[in-house]
Amino acid sequence: MTGSNWSVPETEVVQRIHERLGEDGTDVLATIVDVEGNAYRRPGAKMLLDEAGEGVGSITAGCLEDELLVAAKSVRERGRPELVTYDLMEDDDDVWGLGVGCNGIIDVLLEPLTDAYRPAVEAFDEGRSVAVLTVLEGDDEGDEGDERTGRDGSGEEDASLAHGDRAYYHPEEGVLATPDGEPATAWPDDLAGPATDLAERGRADTIEIEVRGERLEVFIDGLAAPTELVVFGSGHDVGPVTELAAKNDFRVTVVSFRGSVDLEDRFPDADETVTTSPAAIDDGINLDGRTYAVVMTHNFVDDRLTIERLLDSPVPYVGLMGPQERFEEMTEAFESEGTTFDGAALSSLYTPIGLDLGGGSPYQIAHSIVAEVLAVSNDRTPQHLNAREGHIHDRVSVDSEADSSST
Amino acid sequence: MTGSNWSVPETEVVQRIHERLGEDGTDVLATIVDVEGNAYRRPGAKMLLDEAGEGVGSITAGCLEDELLVAAKSVRERGRPELVTYDLMEDDDDVWGLGVGCNGIIDVLLEPLTDAYRPAVEAFDEGRSVAVLTVLEGDDEGDEGDERTGRDGSGEEDASLAHGDRAYYHPEEGVLATPDGEPATAWPDDLAGPATDLAERGRADTIEIEVRGERLEVFIDGLAAPTELVVFGSGHDVGPVTELAAKNDFRVTVVSFRGSVDLEDRFPDADETVTTSPAAIDDGINLDGRTYAVVMTHNFVDDRLTIERLLDSPVPYVGLMGPQERFEEMTEAFESEGTTFDGAALSSLYTPIGLDLGGGSPYQIAHSIVAEVLAVSNDRTPQHLNAREGHIHDRVSVDSEADSSST
Repeated sequence: MTGSNWSVPETEVVQRIHERLGEDGTDVLATIVDVEGNAYRRPGAKMLLDEAGEGVGSITAGCLEDELLVAAKSVRERGRPELVTYDLMEDDDDVWGLGVGCNGIIDVLLEPLTDAYRPAVEAFDEGRSVAVLTVLEGDDEGDEGDERTGRDGSGEEDASLAHGDRAYYHPEEGVLATPDGEPATAWPDDLAGPATDLAERGRADTIEIEVRGERLEVFIDGLAAPTELVVFGSGHDVGPVTELAAKNDFRVTVVSFRGSVDLEDRFPDADETVTTSPAAIDDGINLDGRTYAVVMTHNFVDDRLTIERLLDSPVPYVGLMGPQERFEEMTEAFESEGTTFDGAALSSLYTPIGLDLGGGSPYQIAHSIVAEVLAVSNDRTPQHLNAREGHIHDRVSVDSEADSSST
Repeated sequence: MTGSNWSVPETEVVQRIHERLGEDGTDVLATIVDVEGNAYRRPGAKMLLDEAGEGVGSITAGCLEDELLVAAKSVRERGRPELVTYDLMEDDDDVWGLGVGCNGIIDVLLEPLTDAYRPAVEAFDEGRSVAVLTVLEGDDEGDEGDERTGRDGSGEEDASLAHGDRAYYHPEEGVLATPDGEPATAWPDDLAGPATDLAERGRADTIEIEVRGERLEVFIDGLAAPTELVVFGSGHDVGPVTELAAKNDFRVTVVSFRGSVDLEDRFPDADETVTTSPAAIDDGINLDGRTYAVVMTHNFVDDRLTIERLLDSPVPYVGLMGPQERFEEMTEAFESEGTTFDGAALSSLYTPIGLDLGGGSPYQIAHSIVAEVLAVSNDRTPQHLNAREGHIHDRVSVDSEADSSST
């Protein structure tokens, strides 16, 4: 496996899954289901393994990947999902402990990639969050569900759920559906709450619920639609911001007010480029609560009109390049027009833009901007991790926001 | 000019200067000398402009570059340096003010790239910091120094200094030299102090001094040797760290303890790859006060031996991947060996590594690591830039730090 495939952004892993769905079905999808202790990646991390032994994405920092290829071979041959546990908590002498140094037990779900996964990637591609639900332990626990694998859980004739059963939850539609798009009537409605939460946050967790007197363990893998980053500007300095944001899994739109014809060539890392005018920002650009905005047109009037529109939108982050004094000048212009913004609107404004990393080159400036957007989008206070109370990754808990695990 | 040339790391601009030194001399080097108010780049920022109108590096966010090409043509034709002032503080209606929105006055030194610049790039390439000194105003002020341009300032017969005169200061050797390597006897020794400081910090400034009763304005352009980042590890996760660090102007060495034969292929962005053992780290790897270290071998014993050596070195930053508990385990091992570290040593240790940006993908983890190294190497407290100098609406006096004009 090549390093570049290993470290692809998550969005590219999903894109790869999409591309391979229509193939011969020899690919195996590995998803971290649970981590006990600490590990490099967290639940929901994915890796797609093909028959030739190539993988896209990552489960660990490289220590389990060879073992996964072996396990994938078995899954490919048997044609059904398996939950494999890797214990990395052994003594240092042990091959795992020595090789990885991540003191954790990792449960990985391996499954043949079939068209049954299509509802997830299609929703993701369309910018809709989705949760993939998989029964890990059901009423046939111990049986490993041999002949039941492949059931879609919709069966009216058998209302129980079994190991390997799958459903999808689409929060926007409020619908729990089987892989073939039918209502998943066998699945309890109680799953809607945690599935919505995990889908929107892009987190994964395993929950236990009681269904008709039976204990059911369900892995809920939330695929959040990529966070949108809209960059207003078309100067050279937009390039490094776009490049680094794309690597960090943002879906990037570059908005130019200058009618450049070659925007796509200039910003090859942008998912979309739009030419418009400050007065028509709303046309075709979605300014919602999941959209982050960076304003760097370097044109005072364009910036001012853009800021005015953004501060009056639900966009949670508006980064403005330039010194504080420049925004103060803007404020004077707003005031002379009778435009005012309340504290909530102004709290979304970050100017000067970026974290204080001290760099001055175009890439260093872009690095500091993308670092700030990442921190705000993840609701983090930028500081050294060694100063953070608690654990690095959010421990996903459906009922409480407790913190925990990983790296 | 293509965007990718515009946003190259500073190290690549210097590399490009080096490559072009031996060419036909039609290239013009532009260096920001002074910024009044605020601008995108700070003094010392460079751009190399060739005869075909292509540029490498950046002076502004794209607004002055076309004008620079015109000025470069004049400098190329006249064959001598010029100091050009761009006033970006005009009204918004003005072509500059409208186009850039960076409220500043920028002085740019344009000079034909000649072999006289070689001492600077050679020192830089060899990892030695150097200061390039240029007389902006001397005793021939107003004369523009026509026939004096090109003088090396060493003339015993004429002890005065004139517009355009140049010397180099090499802090390691404590020597002020002319471009042809002779002692620059005409230059005052007082310049050694500020030249050392600016060279080591990689900052540029203009100072005024009195020489033999005459007021002299000297631009001192410090080219700091690139900061060294040594990454211990050879897993896939080393790749994104190496890539992002190189973009941020670090000179990256990847150290593997696993004897991989294809290190250079695996980490194409590394400037150097070394295969060694934890016991022999000192051989060939420079662990000095300008070296930053990231430890991510994922092997507990290798990490421990590396950390033990690094904490006993002048390295100002030692980032260790893994949870806090892992370092606590290491500490127990150190204590059982009778090894202890004082507070100063431990204050250089950052574990878990990285800034708290909340990301979990390989690139997001790498982004947080490189952001932390940048902040520490620039002696910054990571926080939102808008929190750095008080609230947005407070009129705060801009401090006079050399780099306060960036962004």
